[in-house]
Amino acid sequence: MDKTQKETIILGIDPGTNIMGYGVIKVLGKKASMIAMGVIDMRKIGDQHLKLGHIFKRVTGIIESYLPDEMAIEAPFFGKNVQSMLKLGRAQGVAMAAAMNRDVPITEYAPLKIKMAITGNGSASKEQVADMLRRMLNISQDEMPRFLDATDALAAAYCHYLQLDRPESDGHAPKSWKEFVAKNPGRVNGINKKVTENN
Amino acid sequence: MDKTQKETIILGIDPGTNIMGYGVIKVLGKKASMIAMGVIDMRKIGDQHLKLGHIFKRVTGIIESYLPDEMAIEAPFFGKNVQSMLKLGRAQGVAMAAAMNRDVPITEYAPLKIKMAITGNGSASKEQVADMLRRMLNISQDEMPRFLDATDALAAAYCHYLQLDRPESDGHAPKSWKEFVAKNPGRVNGINKKVTENN
Repeated sequence: MDKTQKETIILGIDPGTNIMGYGVIKVLGKKASMIAMGVIDMRKIGDQHLKLGHIFKRVTGIIESYLPDEMAIEAPFFGKNVQSMLKLGRAQGVAMAAAMNRDVPITEYAPLKIKMAITGNGSASKEQVADMLRRMLNISQDEMPRFLDATDALAAAYCHYLQLDRPESDGHAPKSWKEFVAKNPGRVNGINKKVTENN
Repeated sequence: MDKTQKETIILGIDPGTNIMGYGVIKVLGKKASMIAMGVIDMRKIGDQHLKLGHIFKRVTGIIESYLPDEMAIEAPFFGKNVQSMLKLGRAQGVAMAAAMNRDVPITEYAPLKIKMAITGNGSASKEQVADMLRRMLNISQDEMPRFLDATDALAAAYCHYLQLDRPESDGHAPKSWKEFVAKNPGRVNGINKKVTENN
């Protein structure tokens, strides 16, 4: 991504089977700004299959509205049990299919990696992630969403922006935090500093 | 489903991340016949996200070709580990989203239930399932597919047809084999007999 040349729109998605968060940022030169964020609320849809259909239609609608160049999706590598992973996999798969159906390339980020990139702390709370984003993207307190799924999605988008911005990045997301650390020695403590410099 | 009144097209899907099987049957009155079966081969697509996009486009194409009234999908309730369930969940979710996007209702069947419905034996091999389907649907040896994922998908469609045909059925697939047995006492030994009667 040549940041001096063109505008890049990044759609972040935090998939879930009840609430799915989304966040859109625009990157122009060295500056990232928030375009939109919100949630897809499926709590009142009882049928699992209708929920999946709803995710597809809403994500497709968001893509048609903001025409993102890239999608960043929060995707855990491990889960509590096979049942919850199957359900989560379905929700993820549908959001991914909506992106692929519109030729939007996808990058996956583990939750730990996103928290680390935004706050410098892999065990940061959702509130800490939201607060850091609010300051970095100059979002007013009134603009902040009711559901932190929205800020989590925005965090995925912002994490992707930071990833693209790194000169030493090979453009591919590491498969795990371990791989990331191996690939980027001494970078773990540098993320926060970098974020500050960019803003 | 009033089988004396209308024709019903059932699309069966056996989802996988490398090979996805599909089978289409037409039900007219008491008679079921095979319309099509085949596989979506994704072994040469290296990228996981491109695979999901491919599943969406191919399943959408199959739905547009055969205009199914219902989709039956083979869906295990348990898996070896969270990693494989996440991958399987993504593939399932994409096939389901393609159906919901065209307003095709979905019913899920556990592999054990499908094998039981077709052969009367929950631990039947894929070959035994294929052989029984071949005889029940009068498919010639030459028409049989190279991949048993295709006959597994056809089996899901045929299982759904048998399910719809049962007067005592409430129209909803039991969540598990245990629930099925509880709901249908004395039915376990009767399935094979019923299949014979229908054909």
